[in-house]
Amino acid sequence: MRKQIEVRQRLLAENERAAAELRDLFARNRMLVTNLISSPGSGKTTLLEATAAALGHDLRLGAVSGDIATERDADRLRRMGIPASQIITGGACHLDARLVTEHLANWDLAALDVLFIENVGNLVCPTSYDLGEDFKVALLSVTEGDDKPFKYPGIFARAAVTVITKIDLLPHVRFDMDAVRNQVRTLNPDTHILQLSCTTGEGVDSWCRLLLNLLDAKRDSMKEDRR
Amino acid sequence: MRKQIEVRQRLLAENERAAAELRDLFARNRMLVTNLISSPGSGKTTLLEATAAALGHDLRLGAVSGDIATERDADRLRRMGIPASQIITGGACHLDARLVTEHLANWDLAALDVLFIENVGNLVCPTSYDLGEDFKVALLSVTEGDDKPFKYPGIFARAAVTVITKIDLLPHVRFDMDAVRNQVRTLNPDTHILQLSCTTGEGVDSWCRLLLNLLDAKRDSMKEDRR
Repeated sequence: MRKQIEVRQRLLAENERAAAELRDLFARNRMLVTNLISSPGSGKTTLLEATAAALGHDLRLGAVSGDIATERDADRLRRMGIPASQIITGGACHLDARLVTEHLANWDLAALDVLFIENVGNLVCPTSYDLGEDFKVALLSVTEGDDKPFKYPGIFARAAVTVITKIDLLPHVRFDMDAVRNQVRTLNPDTHILQLSCTTGEGVDSWCRLLLNLLDAKRDSMKEDRR
Repeated sequence: MRKQIEVRQRLLAENERAAAELRDLFARNRMLVTNLISSPGSGKTTLLEATAAALGHDLRLGAVSGDIATERDADRLRRMGIPASQIITGGACHLDARLVTEHLANWDLAALDVLFIENVGNLVCPTSYDLGEDFKVALLSVTEGDDKPFKYPGIFARAAVTVITKIDLLPHVRFDMDAVRNQVRTLNPDTHILQLSCTTGEGVDSWCRLLLNLLDAKRDSMKEDRR
């Protein structure tokens, strides 16, 4: 057990170093990077499809999608006209910074404004691995139930943005939105909480506006740093 | 990386030994044990509530529920009148056989016919850890999308039973049931595939019948072994 903890601590320390290098790389390219984390089927790829449709003409978007198996998510995003590639982990339950670094080696990052890193569908393990992103996004679909933030506190405490998805299904499920918002705020008082449906489009504009604001804010702060 | 693989292999070997002891313990008590694995919010606890309502008078049921945090699942099951306790993993993404062994130390297993082990909500990590169960059950809700078996092949290949949940929501989501059944059968030709809704009750009887048949089959095979 002690050995296991030591190995895990060393892995996390190695990951921190690789993440710091990624963060520098992203900053040099003046790009905004998000790390999307959720259960399988919460709608990460669907949200990115909707984002590509809404912002693809104004911003240069790109995506890397992590998965245990299959190229399916990257295929879907390429069909939306954005450069996308799949990191197949072959069983591993999360992305780490080294995997992302290797994967981006051949990308022209200067050609991107925003990079989405779609993590493996897992509400637990990806939480601990910094990928050099500007912020994490936690997604929770209303069909998953309204007890999830307190049951999986790690991700909701760390994500700067929580997106509650599939709100078109609210009439058909028991889901106390106020309870969920309160749980998320208890874990992370400063988080942005958005509600949306990619089926009806409701709320997608708020998500896109938030991305644009965060990109502007990052670039403005970089200008100030240079003065 | 090599160190990491070595540690993981040792952990899995240790788990196999502990799982073999659990399997003996369960056999001595002539009980059926299932290990339920799914994404967060697929309906594991809800299925166990429905099972307790349907079978609680005929069978002596018990449950242990794994979770990162909160006692909520065990509380729900105790309210259904079955003995239930929570294993709070404090961050760990799966149950292992040692945790289950420690947890069951004070249980009177001879007083049970069926024990449900509700794993941590995670479609990846619990897959590799044998808990001495008779069979694994994979749950997939129709709201998670119809691409999941091929995206998370490990669990669907190993589960003797796949339960597709929340079928009352089929009119409101895109979900190709035949595609999912074909993916599951490709990964695991011998698996039982059930479809049900705990909201309408449709299909719950088939699940209960399957449990009764598997319990009878286990006890019959133990009689034959003794001859």
